[in-house]
Amino acid sequence: KISLGVELHCRCIQTERKPIGRHIEKVELIPASSHCEETEIIATLKRTGQEVCLDPEAPWVKKVIQRILSKK
Amino acid sequence: KISLGVELHCRCIQTERKPIGRHIEKVELIPASSHCEETEIIATLKRTGQEVCLDPEAPWVKKVIQRILSKK
Repeated sequence: KISLGVELHCRCIQTERKPIGRHIEKVELIPASSHCEETEIIATLKRTGQEVCLDPEAPWVKKVIQRILSKK
Repeated sequence: KISLGVELHCRCIQTERKPIGRHIEKVELIPASSHCEETEIIATLKRTGQEVCLDPEAPWVKKVIQRILSKK
């Protein structure tokens, strides 16, 4: 679900549909740029280290990010 | 301003005070965990690739993140 290699293009091909909030180790936010027209959000999962793309428009994704930001 | 190595401890030692919103290539959000009691936000700057820690409590940091999320 993620393409590898240099970031001269979009990295996300598909986004995860099911909420995975509790298993996130970190979240990368990549603003839209000349390399990729869309904002990309890539979560790294705990334990497996698997990277999954999240949909910036999905309400549960916004909530996950707000929850991370609201904790000290 | 960032310690290197495995992430078994907090990575941020200091946070950036001046707003750097326009020069951000990506932002990593690292939720608080057993490895680090605080939420950490690490921005990678365009061109230099330099990593800087941002203060999750700073209003300008929250704005930068909202701006990234609100763009398609």
